Amino acid sequence: MDPRVRGWSFSAGPAALPRPVRDRIRDEFDDFDGTGRSLVELPFSAPAFRDVVARAERDLRALLAIPDDYAVLFLQGGASAQFGLLPPNLGVGEAGADYVETGYWSRRTIAEAARVTRVHIAASSAGTDFDRIPDERDWRVRPDAAYVHVTTNETADGIAFHRAPRVADIPLVADMSSDFLTAPLDVAAWGVIYASAQKNIGPAGLTVVLVRRDLLGRAHRSVPAVFDYTLQAEAASMFNTPPTFAIYVAGLVLAWLRDAGGVAAMAAANRRKSAAIHDVIDGSGGFYRCAVRPADRSRVNVCFRLADEALTGTFVAAARDAGLFDLAGHSRVGGVRASLYNAVPEAAASALAAFMRDFQQRHG
Amino acid sequence: MDPRVRGWSFSAGPAALPRPVRDRIRDEFDDFDGTGRSLVELPFSAPAFRDVVARAERDLRALLAIPDDYAVLFLQGGASAQFGLLPPNLGVGEAGADYVETGYWSRRTIAEAARVTRVHIAASSAGTDFDRIPDERDWRVRPDAAYVHVTTNETADGIAFHRAPRVADIPLVADMSSDFLTAPLDVAAWGVIYASAQKNIGPAGLTVVLVRRDLLGRAHRSVPAVFDYTLQAEAASMFNTPPTFAIYVAGLVLAWLRDAGGVAAMAAANRRKSAAIHDVIDGSGGFYRCAVRPADRSRVNVCFRLADEALTGTFVAAARDAGLFDLAGHSRVGGVRASLYNAVPEAAASALAAFMRDFQQRHG
Repeated sequence: MDPRVRGWSFSAGPAALPRPVRDRIRDEFDDFDGTGRSLVELPFSAPAFRDVVARAERDLRALLAIPDDYAVLFLQGGASAQFGLLPPNLGVGEAGADYVETGYWSRRTIAEAARVTRVHIAASSAGTDFDRIPDERDWRVRPDAAYVHVTTNETADGIAFHRAPRVADIPLVADMSSDFLTAPLDVAAWGVIYASAQKNIGPAGLTVVLVRRDLLGRAHRSVPAVFDYTLQAEAASMFNTPPTFAIYVAGLVLAWLRDAGGVAAMAAANRRKSAAIHDVIDGSGGFYRCAVRPADRSRVNVCFRLADEALTGTFVAAARDAGLFDLAGHSRVGGVRASLYNAVPEAAASALAAFMRDFQQRHG
Repeated sequence: MDPRVRGWSFSAGPAALPRPVRDRIRDEFDDFDGTGRSLVELPFSAPAFRDVVARAERDLRALLAIPDDYAVLFLQGGASAQFGLLPPNLGVGEAGADYVETGYWSRRTIAEAARVTRVHIAASSAGTDFDRIPDERDWRVRPDAAYVHVTTNETADGIAFHRAPRVADIPLVADMSSDFLTAPLDVAAWGVIYASAQKNIGPAGLTVVLVRRDLLGRAHRSVPAVFDYTLQAEAASMFNTPPTFAIYVAGLVLAWLRDAGGVAAMAAANRRKSAAIHDVIDGSGGFYRCAVRPADRSRVNVCFRLADEALTGTFVAAARDAGLFDLAGHSRVGGVRASLYNAVPEAAASALAAFMRDFQQRHG
């Protein structure tokens, strides 16, 4: 274990920052880029801050090979703000939009969208307790839906899409809050992608939105100007004061990601990290159980239960004492959750796997 | 001058942090409150972060003697997001709401509100080029207006209300982004107060909203849940992931403010700082000119012009070379602007006053 680290974080978000990013923020906190001031204190019109935004966008575009016909927006409010702001931004009409229900977060998204538009559930795995991504052949997508929305990684349930669904002629929209930048991504398959920063991009308080430009210009008047995709695209995300510190940290994370081999390297590492945990689960003879169908298991949020549910609290507390933090499942779902985002090193996953084997020996 | 400082910031926002706050953020960036982690990396459900929020709210309530029947909300999006979100949050009906127009920011507020409700201009000083707060006796407030909105300090124009207007039986609403916490405030005179953090509270990316509780429960369905005053009041501002770092910094600023004598001490200092600059302007024989009527001059944004407008660029550049930063006026207004928020020390105002006298000697 890194001697400077007292433990490993498996937080679902806000999550661990890459260590070099954390060090750099501290080191230059008093004097950003020779300005003699903290980044936090710079006006957003300062050239030094403009450079920060431009570099962050350039690195993000390079990492995901984002085509030029997509706008990149840095907004506030979290992905949760997009739940209600996206439908009017895309100008949904009478027919409303289609949603795929795959777990806790898509349910919240649907509930929020239903406040402002007609929502049709095109597919759901609620009937099997969210143990899978519904088979695409069974989806009932309406041809007049404004868009089809999916949550590519269900943070609370540990379920994920591992490729974009195929939906003919209707814009595909995704909340990618927990798997954005964790694997290569065919951006062109999507109309809109949005993601909260506090898992793989940086600190809480920033939301990244990618919008295919032909979907701009459709916002209803109810959309506040600062959340209007078109106005913010025209203003390079500076229609009003942006969350400057959060964008700065995101820029450092993106540069770190680039230097660490990009999203392909992250995907390989995340596959190994999640496999290390699943190997223990699958080899535990039922002591640990993961209900999710293997093909649909998330590689960044491994969710499982102990056969003896009464042991869950003991497990989480003992893990914490061993320096393995924030393993309790989502409060509405229960069980155990290990979030293995990009900044979580493979050593952390190995340490957790070893702890799980040991815990089983002591309590099995 | 503090030997660690290369200059003074007069930025209109994001603005300077108090030096002890900046030092503390750096010093504990790696290990917050004995957690072994950075505050940025803590889940918002962590007890250490819950304490941060609770302390920030407690200090804010104490500083302004906020009555218990007001909810304190920590939101995202900036004051600009409130321009469009406040009307539906307060459930405006057919009659719409009344606004007082006093400068650049109230104009932007009005334009945004007009996208979502009927706006009636109850008073305006546009006819005299925003040189004053319109005389209350001339206000035409409609008795059925949902509320009356004012911008208590016009950051771009240097005009301010120095006491709450008297509006019978209609909730009074204020954007206090630039003067919040700069002087004592009778919270009970107001229905809603909102303020961006990046001037006197902390970093960009946080908006503080105070709402009298009898105004809760009125939101239209178009308001995204994360911006619904009622839902966020019930959730102690944690309906979704809050901007954790920004709230933490705000908490440090509030504690610093308390230890520095509170808002009364700030008001006295801000009065001295602004007087130092206005004394130079008023004694310059017309070399510097401030168009705002003395009684309505802001004590935190001193806006002025050089009689020879062509000298403005020279002034701003020479000031920068002398370590006096960010003195250019708002891009839509021009001229010079010295923002003298709480964290700007009196030594900075004295240094600017001395520079102005010297500049006049060289160019007058």
